[in-house]
Amino acid sequence: MSDQRTILYIVGYLLGALSVGMLLPALTDLAHGHPDWRVFVVSAALTGFVAGGIILTHRGTLPPLSVRQAFMLTGFSWLALAAFAALPFAFSVLDLGYTDAFFEAMSGLTTTGATIIVGLDTASPGLLLWRALLQWFGGIGIIVTAISVLPMLNVGGMQLFRLESSDTSEKILPRTAQIAGSIMQLYVVITAACVIAYIAAGMSVFDAIAHAMTTIATGGFSTHDDSFAHFDSHAVNAVAIIFMLASSLPFVAYLQLVNRKPEALMRDTQIRTFFLLAAAATAIVWGGQMLQNTGTNDFIRTAFNTISVMTGTGYTAADHSAWGTFALGVFFVLTFIGGCAGSTACGLKIFRLQVVVKTAWRHIRQLTRPNGVFIIRYNGRLLDDAVVHSIIVFVLIFLLSFVLVALSLSLMGQDILTSLSGAAAALANVGPGLGPVIGPSGTYAPLPDAAKYILAFAMLLGRLEFLTVLVMLSPRFWRR
Amino acid sequence: MSDQRTILYIVGYLLGALSVGMLLPALTDLAHGHPDWRVFVVSAALTGFVAGGIILTHRGTLPPLSVRQAFMLTGFSWLALAAFAALPFAFSVLDLGYTDAFFEAMSGLTTTGATIIVGLDTASPGLLLWRALLQWFGGIGIIVTAISVLPMLNVGGMQLFRLESSDTSEKILPRTAQIAGSIMQLYVVITAACVIAYIAAGMSVFDAIAHAMTTIATGGFSTHDDSFAHFDSHAVNAVAIIFMLASSLPFVAYLQLVNRKPEALMRDTQIRTFFLLAAAATAIVWGGQMLQNTGTNDFIRTAFNTISVMTGTGYTAADHSAWGTFALGVFFVLTFIGGCAGSTACGLKIFRLQVVVKTAWRHIRQLTRPNGVFIIRYNGRLLDDAVVHSIIVFVLIFLLSFVLVALSLSLMGQDILTSLSGAAAALANVGPGLGPVIGPSGTYAPLPDAAKYILAFAMLLGRLEFLTVLVMLSPRFWRR
Repeated sequence: MSDQRTILYIVGYLLGALSVGMLLPALTDLAHGHPDWRVFVVSAALTGFVAGGIILTHRGTLPPLSVRQAFMLTGFSWLALAAFAALPFAFSVLDLGYTDAFFEAMSGLTTTGATIIVGLDTASPGLLLWRALLQWFGGIGIIVTAISVLPMLNVGGMQLFRLESSDTSEKILPRTAQIAGSIMQLYVVITAACVIAYIAAGMSVFDAIAHAMTTIATGGFSTHDDSFAHFDSHAVNAVAIIFMLASSLPFVAYLQLVNRKPEALMRDTQIRTFFLLAAAATAIVWGGQMLQNTGTNDFIRTAFNTISVMTGTGYTAADHSAWGTFALGVFFVLTFIGGCAGSTACGLKIFRLQVVVKTAWRHIRQLTRPNGVFIIRYNGRLLDDAVVHSIIVFVLIFLLSFVLVALSLSLMGQDILTSLSGAAAALANVGPGLGPVIGPSGTYAPLPDAAKYILAFAMLLGRLEFLTVLVMLSPRFWRR
Repeated sequence: MSDQRTILYIVGYLLGALSVGMLLPALTDLAHGHPDWRVFVVSAALTGFVAGGIILTHRGTLPPLSVRQAFMLTGFSWLALAAFAALPFAFSVLDLGYTDAFFEAMSGLTTTGATIIVGLDTASPGLLLWRALLQWFGGIGIIVTAISVLPMLNVGGMQLFRLESSDTSEKILPRTAQIAGSIMQLYVVITAACVIAYIAAGMSVFDAIAHAMTTIATGGFSTHDDSFAHFDSHAVNAVAIIFMLASSLPFVAYLQLVNRKPEALMRDTQIRTFFLLAAAATAIVWGGQMLQNTGTNDFIRTAFNTISVMTGTGYTAADHSAWGTFALGVFFVLTFIGGCAGSTACGLKIFRLQVVVKTAWRHIRQLTRPNGVFIIRYNGRLLDDAVVHSIIVFVLIFLLSFVLVALSLSLMGQDILTSLSGAAAALANVGPGLGPVIGPSGTYAPLPDAAKYILAFAMLLGRLEFLTVLVMLSPRFWRR
């Protein structure tokens, strides 16, 4: 319990990187002659000072991390980064309180995309870039966490995605570091491709960069108050759809593609199910609009919003509040789903839904054949009961957290639609909720401060797959 | 697959009992000089004719039921009873369509208490008695099903409540029949006690009988449009609270009480947790009203509605629509909870919540001690993993059904509050939902026919613990 030097040292380095990151919006505002460049320099100095202090006082040979410390590191580093990433928002001309600034930073780093800022169209370019950068950092952060930390911690069935399950942990770590490096390169390449595609579709260079970063992160922060409706362009919407889908696939699969093993990508049941669900959801929302005679009658916009909510991005090409009761219901359900494990997408994740459905179906078959032996396969591999159990418990904890967060919001006087959709949108890192307050046309600004902290915690909980955070609630965790 | 004689024979007998039951409201209407007595006689004749036909053509030595046939019998008998129990509603002066009549009958037999009838205060006494009788029959029906059939079928962890788990099925059956007999006597005694208590508290004899039947069944049909608000009496409300709570305890526990083993009742963790939750829920709703400055400021009414929703009864002592956003949220969550297994109460049931929470907690502790062995005990007994799994899958199937029913309602144009609360209230057999349409002051009459059939199916699904019905969806069920 005593030696937390390694944790602090790593957090120090991450804060150092954040501090350097703050210089990018500083330069941007300086180039545009916006006075807020000072805000970023001051924030960078403050963050850099703390980072330097931590690093200098914790040098030397550091002990390796225990499992327990890996949990602490994951939770603590995201919290610390959000706390400092909030500084530019708090110091800027927007004059936000620290609560709002922290909410916005956490929403960024967790790639949620819920915003409390009104007036994005007139905000400084540095501030807009900072929001995009936070999501971009958060996106690569979660992929690396999902590949390296979560499988080791057996969180919510992520042990399924251990890279080399038969190896000991000493062998896995260097290999994981190598893969994490390749994925970071890939992340930059895909982002660059997205920038080019957005420019080709007609966006300005600045908008293209900012939106590419938040698209690849399935984050959803936009540089405009009315999100993608601002561009009103089928080409721009189509580019976003393609890259939102692409960012919801496991990034490890792209490495296999680069290594000329495309069949692995095609044969992955999670990927196939993801595309199937995305297509089905779009068809259902589209069909529902036809049946109820509501909505846009615009197929691209329908697909855009459906995929945006399902992948947890949170952009909107049109306000879907008026798309009828059924579309609203489907969007509410889609909020929970998310993309594939090992991507930037959020929510329950496709593989967990698959395993839950398979388990329920096995159970139903078992009832008539009490002595029959039924097995569950995933991607051709036999699933052992511990993994199935781990996934099912994850889903239950997700739903239990949802109920508690929704009740907390209702206690603060929020109506039922705001409470339910806000809780779901935060836990699944989607961003906008439903209804007039926090729906596609609203922001989270009107909520009371306590609600903002609860939602920020919910975003962290969802982004770190619940158990990584909740495990620290066990008194045993802190004993011995 | 061929020999379904035993199933038909038993259903024939049940319909015969239903036909005899119809003579009670016939006599009541005759005594009050209401012309609807003919309606009941015609319905009884029709039902009796069908019942007699089935019984006569299926006499002789009958083969014993297989597991598969036990499932079919359970599902089919509740469906057949509802279909015929609807006749008096369809033929009466209310002039309901068959959809509405079937909805009302299913709502009665499943002890749900959702109604489509407006104008109860002027309805014939026979009709009011018929609604009460349906819930009363449904209540004893489900207790007997829960004791005798469900544990045998391993449905949703009900195997925990096998009476003598070490015995073979041949020995269990006679013992089960004996216990079912004792419980029926007990059911009559408790109902009589409730009638007397209601009369003592100031109800008319007719109201006391009708409400005692629907209280013991945790059903919730009232003889007045404004339910218990009509009586506006603390004494009446208190009697109802006591008997709603009493009816949510496992009826087997009362047998132990009669057999002078009261310690079993006290030591049962399910019973203790139930009372704890009921008290906590009341305190939370009460506290929420204080915080939000809303509601009745009437403690008895608060406790009444809270316990009514939690136990799945569905009476209201006041319309809780105006009790604030938090109370609404808590009521929505309470809808799912229900009472103890082996009672007339509905919903997820206390023991399942206990096991789910214990399992989630074990999982969280396990994360930091991957090699530790953690066991789950229930009532001092070690829970084996198959039972835990069975309970967790049950909860997931409940939630999945909830999502599907809610989406179906939203597809039919219902607003989100109606869709969500209607789906929950039907599946958990609570009765009234939330909001202006189906809330405490509304009825289900305005819903489209398709929605009524979906909700009636949802009631059946919930009452028969989902899996009993869903198992028949498996193609394997019908093979060989």
